Amino acid sequence: MKVLVIGGIAGGPSFATRLRRINEDAEIIIFERGAAISVASCALPYYLGGLIKDRSAVIERTPEILKQKNNIDVRLFNEVTRINPNDKNVEVKNLQTGETYTESYDKLIIATGASPTVPEIAGIHDADNAFVLRAVTDADKIKSFIEEKHPKNVTVLGAGSIGIEVSEAFVDNNMDVTIVEQSGHVASPFDPEITDIVADELKKQGVHVILNESVQQIKDHGHTLVLDDGSIHRTDMLFLGTGVKPNSGIAAAAGIKLSDDNHVIVGNHLQTNLPDIYSIGDVIETTSLITGKPIPSLLSSAANRQGHLLADMLNGSPLEYKGFISAGVSKFFDLTASFVGFTEQTLQQLGITNYRTVFITPFDRAYFYPNADRVNFKLIYEDKTGKILGGQAVGRNGIDKRIAELSVAITGNLTAFDLPSLEIPYSPPYSSTRDVLNIAGYVAINQLTNKSATIKVDDISADDLKTAVFLDIREAGKPATGSIKPTLNIPLSELRDRIDEVPKDKKVYITFRKGLGPYNASRVLAGKGINATMIEE
Amino acid sequence: MKVLVIGGIAGGPSFATRLRRINEDAEIIIFERGAAISVASCALPYYLGGLIKDRSAVIERTPEILKQKNNIDVRLFNEVTRINPNDKNVEVKNLQTGETYTESYDKLIIATGASPTVPEIAGIHDADNAFVLRAVTDADKIKSFIEEKHPKNVTVLGAGSIGIEVSEAFVDNNMDVTIVEQSGHVASPFDPEITDIVADELKKQGVHVILNESVQQIKDHGHTLVLDDGSIHRTDMLFLGTGVKPNSGIAAAAGIKLSDDNHVIVGNHLQTNLPDIYSIGDVIETTSLITGKPIPSLLSSAANRQGHLLADMLNGSPLEYKGFISAGVSKFFDLTASFVGFTEQTLQQLGITNYRTVFITPFDRAYFYPNADRVNFKLIYEDKTGKILGGQAVGRNGIDKRIAELSVAITGNLTAFDLPSLEIPYSPPYSSTRDVLNIAGYVAINQLTNKSATIKVDDISADDLKTAVFLDIREAGKPATGSIKPTLNIPLSELRDRIDEVPKDKKVYITFRKGLGPYNASRVLAGKGINATMIEE
Repeated sequence: MKVLVIGGIAGGPSFATRLRRINEDAEIIIFERGAAISVASCALPYYLGGLIKDRSAVIERTPEILKQKNNIDVRLFNEVTRINPNDKNVEVKNLQTGETYTESYDKLIIATGASPTVPEIAGIHDADNAFVLRAVTDADKIKSFIEEKHPKNVTVLGAGSIGIEVSEAFVDNNMDVTIVEQSGHVASPFDPEITDIVADELKKQGVHVILNESVQQIKDHGHTLVLDDGSIHRTDMLFLGTGVKPNSGIAAAAGIKLSDDNHVIVGNHLQTNLPDIYSIGDVIETTSLITGKPIPSLLSSAANRQGHLLADMLNGSPLEYKGFISAGVSKFFDLTASFVGFTEQTLQQLGITNYRTVFITPFDRAYFYPNADRVNFKLIYEDKTGKILGGQAVGRNGIDKRIAELSVAITGNLTAFDLPSLEIPYSPPYSSTRDVLNIAGYVAINQLTNKSATIKVDDISADDLKTAVFLDIREAGKPATGSIKPTLNIPLSELRDRIDEVPKDKKVYITFRKGLGPYNASRVLAGKGINATMIEE
Repeated sequence: MKVLVIGGIAGGPSFATRLRRINEDAEIIIFERGAAISVASCALPYYLGGLIKDRSAVIERTPEILKQKNNIDVRLFNEVTRINPNDKNVEVKNLQTGETYTESYDKLIIATGASPTVPEIAGIHDADNAFVLRAVTDADKIKSFIEEKHPKNVTVLGAGSIGIEVSEAFVDNNMDVTIVEQSGHVASPFDPEITDIVADELKKQGVHVILNESVQQIKDHGHTLVLDDGSIHRTDMLFLGTGVKPNSGIAAAAGIKLSDDNHVIVGNHLQTNLPDIYSIGDVIETTSLITGKPIPSLLSSAANRQGHLLADMLNGSPLEYKGFISAGVSKFFDLTASFVGFTEQTLQQLGITNYRTVFITPFDRAYFYPNADRVNFKLIYEDKTGKILGGQAVGRNGIDKRIAELSVAITGNLTAFDLPSLEIPYSPPYSSTRDVLNIAGYVAINQLTNKSATIKVDDISADDLKTAVFLDIREAGKPATGSIKPTLNIPLSELRDRIDEVPKDKKVYITFRKGLGPYNASRVLAGKGINATMIEE
């Protein structure tokens, strides 16, 4: 069996090394058009920022090692320019010598990944100071530019994960950073509960953020930016963090079916629509294990897993690829933000509205243990069934841990109802006796069983806004929260004694507060025959 | 409904506050014989060591707060001395006034917990320097003793979690610490792979550990200890960390059925054998969700959960208590050790031998990210089915996270086969593209599907020991591992080229190394028709 792999960054080497471990006889060739294989792309911002000092550290395997340990033929600077499915061969160009040649295959694996998009802004191609970050050579170019030109400032287009991660790297290089983001939030597609906290962190770290704006025109070889509002900004350097697009052109040219957004469509054996051609990694569209609908597969951990599985399947194992949940984590300066599954934003894009949310802010460890800090945690679950649709968290410690727990819960088909029974190892330095997911589950159960009625702030009728009682249960000295002005304040601790102050002939709302306070107040009121409604914000 | 709760430390207050939230009308009284309720017992070592400075921090709720916020009547220094199940009342003694009285109940909850055992050593009751640590007043006594007597050293009996945790507290008080442990390991019931690493840490921290010894006699009011081997040790202070026993005497006297080891036996509504009497927390025996067999319920998180559930059930919710998995974590100086389910040691005590183990030592984050450190991780699963029986880990970072993930996996009924598909959020500061549980799963699958034959070192025949080839695949410069002396060394990276050096007419064993190296070597050999057997140690 002769197996060709196009692309050597993540899924390709995983596939090839696995196949070798289970099949000593296959001939395996990896074509990589770039300068290196097995690049830990996610690590490049840390190399740029100086946290990882050794360039070779971000290259996990070299062609020499793959040859020696795994008997795999890796060809760097070799670009596959054409796939001939009928002849079962590919045309290859050696980018160093200019030589071209064909190579036949029994099985072909397309693992070409994705590349950063370059936004279509007038003048962008004349810029001499604009960079992306995907390959290790991109990092080399940025490092050289900084060393040679000593830019004092940089403008980052796009406030997604990569935009924020490189912002930290630039700050670590003592540069002044401005992020321009066309949406109204940083760190999209996280939801506002999370992005607001990330925005505060960026401000604290001295990063300037311009929201709801994009660059309309680039002048002066990239050193002058004109924004939509006409304002003009000078910049020494430009970073393009506006997203990635799948490298699927070669697949399309060969007649391989793509999705509307140009991802290779694969079946449950990771096969394309053409015989003996398979595809894995960032270039493919896969299936969400949560919704059953197609989603892009944009995570290197997913690419690795797909490579491993494809090798097993090609070698005869009766396995299937079922799709993925999607889980990620990012270090945003001193914060960690992590997600699994869908956010409200991504659910709404899919037209899914049959969900409820829980937002809680318990501590990462026992609240009395030194350095206890908040885990800002949002759970999204399907109404009625409690099926878990997604989770997000942000904070300083234990963020990745709670989202990893939730990811495993989703894999185990647990619902929001099951979360209270999770057994999270407890000791004060690490957790609470009722830990984050337990609490989220208790709140969800309260919502689901309608022990407490809740309403979204926008759904309160105009009539009620004029006539109803809006009860604020905050204790003396605590800050007000929520967007509704209270008409009555009785601290929760005094509610039983002062319950006669709550009118029995009016509709009662409890104004928004984080945590279980409003719920506890609703229970006290219910015990006296008052059915209050908690406001969700 | 009038509800009495005996015991106010963990499960009792959880039960009472939950019941109040869902039932505004119940009369609820908690009797606590001690000086405080809602004590975070697990936090006491940190209070003792000075990490937690505020004594009130370890008391999570006061009687005043429970009265004011929850309308619960808490009676400190009130000891229930007798239960009269026929009259449905209890006799109570006010320990401050000496007054006794009876209180009737509709429902009675026994949440009396457990107390430290005092080992039966001659002379122990004459000691004026011996302490245990369970109540906040125990911590007060130890603190006073240290402040007044300035002990230079302390002898800790028992190297379990509490023994090691207080050792750290004593070291933080600049005391010289000696631990005397009667078994051959510290940190039991962790298995040797874990305890060896904890033992190294204790040594590094300057703690003296005497294993396989116990104190035979205590003289000189606790200041002289005679060990089993006759050696005599002077000590300024004694700490008894030899275990706990359930406070079930009052239950037994009332005719409530106990297990052989004196835990209250409860049914799936947490009910005892007597009508309207329930029990929760450390005093009860519960059911292992893994084996279905009885196990003591010795975790405050479990007590909390049981209290919450019991309140719901008593209030009419159609729920059931199903048992627990058992998961814990301890800070042992700079290490974290955590477990879920069973260890090999505890399985063997139950007579369960139908299991296999995986021991791996991957990094807690990307290996190239600063401060990457090993997660020493052991997985135990049922042979053939892959059912997860337990997991243990020790290391500096991310230990609690991996065991929490495994605990959720157990709750979700995932098997070892499923672990490779877990989606752990990846970014270099937090994890690897194939994270700890993924790797453990891959290794388990390799074991289970017998792609690679393995043998335990003790099972190698005497004949084979004399005649077989023992191939060591370590690379040049790497340390030897395993207890078998190799007869042939070919580094894995050279194995394909030098495969002719491996005799084809002899049985081939691959000597023990951590990680996937031996497995990869076995695949290379299998490709050339040599069926090698990997040695497990």
